[in-house]
Amino acid sequence: MAAVTAVTRWRLLLVLSTAALGAAGAPQPPNILLLLMDDMGWGDLGVYGEPSRETPNLDRMAAEGMLFPNFYTANPLCSPSRAALLTGRLPIRNGFYTTSGHARNAYTPQEIVGGIPDSERLLPELLKEAGYVSKIVGKWHLGHRPQFHPLKHGFDEWFGSPNCHFGPYDNRARPNIPVYRDWEMVGRYYEEFPINLKTGEANLTQIYLQEALDFIRRQQAARRPFFLYWAVDATHAPVYASKPFLGTSQRGRYGDAVREIDDSVGKILHSLQDLGIAESTFVFFTSDNGAALISAPKQGGSNGPFLCGKQTTFEGGMREPAVAWWPGRIPAGQVSHQLGSIMDLFTTSLSLAGLEPPRDRAIDGLSLLPAMLQGQLMDRPIFYYRGNTLMAVTLGQYKAHFWTWTNSWEEFRQGIDFCPGQNVSGVTTHTQEEHTRLPLIFHLGRDPGERFPLRDRRGEMLTRERPWTTAAEMGQRGHSPGTPAAARG
Amino acid sequence: MAAVTAVTRWRLLLVLSTAALGAAGAPQPPNILLLLMDDMGWGDLGVYGEPSRETPNLDRMAAEGMLFPNFYTANPLCSPSRAALLTGRLPIRNGFYTTSGHARNAYTPQEIVGGIPDSERLLPELLKEAGYVSKIVGKWHLGHRPQFHPLKHGFDEWFGSPNCHFGPYDNRARPNIPVYRDWEMVGRYYEEFPINLKTGEANLTQIYLQEALDFIRRQQAARRPFFLYWAVDATHAPVYASKPFLGTSQRGRYGDAVREIDDSVGKILHSLQDLGIAESTFVFFTSDNGAALISAPKQGGSNGPFLCGKQTTFEGGMREPAVAWWPGRIPAGQVSHQLGSIMDLFTTSLSLAGLEPPRDRAIDGLSLLPAMLQGQLMDRPIFYYRGNTLMAVTLGQYKAHFWTWTNSWEEFRQGIDFCPGQNVSGVTTHTQEEHTRLPLIFHLGRDPGERFPLRDRRGEMLTRERPWTTAAEMGQRGHSPGTPAAARG
Repeated sequence: MAAVTAVTRWRLLLVLSTAALGAAGAPQPPNILLLLMDDMGWGDLGVYGEPSRETPNLDRMAAEGMLFPNFYTANPLCSPSRAALLTGRLPIRNGFYTTSGHARNAYTPQEIVGGIPDSERLLPELLKEAGYVSKIVGKWHLGHRPQFHPLKHGFDEWFGSPNCHFGPYDNRARPNIPVYRDWEMVGRYYEEFPINLKTGEANLTQIYLQEALDFIRRQQAARRPFFLYWAVDATHAPVYASKPFLGTSQRGRYGDAVREIDDSVGKILHSLQDLGIAESTFVFFTSDNGAALISAPKQGGSNGPFLCGKQTTFEGGMREPAVAWWPGRIPAGQVSHQLGSIMDLFTTSLSLAGLEPPRDRAIDGLSLLPAMLQGQLMDRPIFYYRGNTLMAVTLGQYKAHFWTWTNSWEEFRQGIDFCPGQNVSGVTTHTQEEHTRLPLIFHLGRDPGERFPLRDRRGEMLTRERPWTTAAEMGQRGHSPGTPAAARG
Repeated sequence: MAAVTAVTRWRLLLVLSTAALGAAGAPQPPNILLLLMDDMGWGDLGVYGEPSRETPNLDRMAAEGMLFPNFYTANPLCSPSRAALLTGRLPIRNGFYTTSGHARNAYTPQEIVGGIPDSERLLPELLKEAGYVSKIVGKWHLGHRPQFHPLKHGFDEWFGSPNCHFGPYDNRARPNIPVYRDWEMVGRYYEEFPINLKTGEANLTQIYLQEALDFIRRQQAARRPFFLYWAVDATHAPVYASKPFLGTSQRGRYGDAVREIDDSVGKILHSLQDLGIAESTFVFFTSDNGAALISAPKQGGSNGPFLCGKQTTFEGGMREPAVAWWPGRIPAGQVSHQLGSIMDLFTTSLSLAGLEPPRDRAIDGLSLLPAMLQGQLMDRPIFYYRGNTLMAVTLGQYKAHFWTWTNSWEEFRQGIDFCPGQNVSGVTTHTQEEHTRLPLIFHLGRDPGERFPLRDRRGEMLTRERPWTTAAEMGQRGHSPGTPAAARG
């Protein structure tokens, strides 16, 4: 593994040294721009088959870049996914899990006292070693107490909020969620930053867009490499859009929010081009978890052909839209079937900066540069956790469920449905069903919707070099997902 | 209506007269090439979000042409849809319906004595008036007795079969299905034209490809306008592919068949370009009905985010992939949200030929040329029939179900499932549920999966100029779907 990484790193440095000799005459690593959506689903982009086709800018980004149809988050919920992205580690490693219930995801409400541990090393902190200036725009969601502040964890700037834009609150039992500029609280949602729940009008995406454009311009002028983490939340319920976008979508308010984000992404990419830094800026677009079907149809998106949504470890909960864009470097109009993870953005970003991942801890992300720049495919697993429970694993085209569960009967009877209109007998269960001895297996190529469990589970799987029960054992033994299969025994 | 059509026709003739002055110096109408798939679903193409992205040629066709995400067949079953395409008329008009059961689709097995009535005027017959030479390659499915032969109904050439490639039969109780070249029976499936059910190997798509290429070359050499109806059937169970494609798809055998068809479409489009007739050939790609989920996952395709499949009047049964391609005429890379119908291909083709639809009968198809050439949108309904029962209507974004039904409990208990893994309470019913007094209404923009019936059905609908119950009445009174809404009262 170490040898592989070293080779990749040196190959990259070689590439950089020939291409990134900027105006200053010194090699400078590329800028990094991660566009992280909130509760946006795999099926929400035109390029992923959304019938209304209202994302021309994101579709163009895909046409000019590389599409990853097999890209996953690390957890079907906001906070653990965001922690995974910024640490390159599974939530069970970075602390964003809970032991208070089996298969219970770690949710981060406004009352929470915890947050990202000081012992975790976040991407912006590491990128400092290569001279990067980092900004987070939008939702942090890794703890709201002072010790968890983004500027305590490597970011140089912040405009946004520590939590979801839920509300309004009465300001007695609960205050409204604060909005920060760097260390300063500059207002609160529903107060200085209004969100009209009735009309869905809010100007926040426009503010986040201006924050991004301003930061990019300033770093370009200063000729410093930058990392911008653009974590907008308009597609998370309560869904919002600014006035020019309200009512413009065929899809209703959710579509209005998507259209505004799409328009903003277009403006950001255009600004990179106008500033002449498109070819020295790596951009990646993805989402933190699957569409929240509990909020559909008015406030939730689409997971396309996939089963269920947010909160679950079916494909609809964790497979994400993903587009990489780096003109002149990543070939245009390509599709990579590399199994990718949100945690790979950590390792890939470090590789871009010419840095190595920390050696003192397990890192679960891989560098996707071989996939992006050389079209290579690495055999690696995807792990699907709920809380600290390993629910499923995908390797190649095969997905093995060790546990199946949507939500409890109690919740379901109250009308909370993570899989509306979908019901696969023995799969979308409302009791936690264990399959660790003989996993429930799907072939995601033939059956992306997880509707037809393989009958001859042992037969088909035993044709691989190692039987599938091994994956379950790996989960129990403490696996090393970052190791390519070729390097395993 | 007559005035509108006349204007469209003259505008078109004007366009043709300036652009289609060929080498001979005389205006010649464009060639027409209809590529009709068998049981291929909306979600089977990369450009429609199929995760394996294995249709580079069709995706390129869409990038160079116009995509219609809201395109429908006229019936969720093979024969009635094909009859509708070639007559421009709903199956209740052209005879491809049955009165032997409520909501029973007209199926055309090998034993059937009926077929397309002599009184119907088929597209190739009408195109003769404009000098077209017509060929059908592949599946006819409009009757196998001599009087129903394609060459009795306007086609000049045929290579293919009157029926599905089911079999093998024992040649006593039932013979194997014959394969014709024009009037001559040249063999039978599973005999001279082998299909290996075990391996899925058959060479038929390659034969159909060569038939298409040969016909195109001959007509180009003779400088005669042609109509080619390429009705391949490799994606209908039993699904097949030729040896070079077997095992090449991530999706299994069904994907192998799709890949071979995609490759063939690429070769056909290239041949048009190589022969220098791409800009004088109108090509349209679509399918006869939704993916047959009863055959999934091994022998059935994908309807993407839509509900249920073939045989049903949910979106998965009748919404089809659709791409128009005419370089230099239809603008590249466009998406049209025009509600389109397979019957429009009849009227559009006549318009291309400078012909008028027959005046002695109701024609249900519209010309899509205003949508394709000028980007216009016409307000028109889509009618969803099963047999002679009007099950549902879509107008704009609203779909009203007057009847809901998947299949009978009896069939369902035998394991025949048209909606595997999908179950929308009160919608995917196994008894025929009538809603004509208060239709079950969905907003297809916000809810393409038909999972969330509108609660306030009257409220939202009454904001339109006419209430929705009118659509039901229209169906009962004998509607005129060809009339644009603007021309109605």
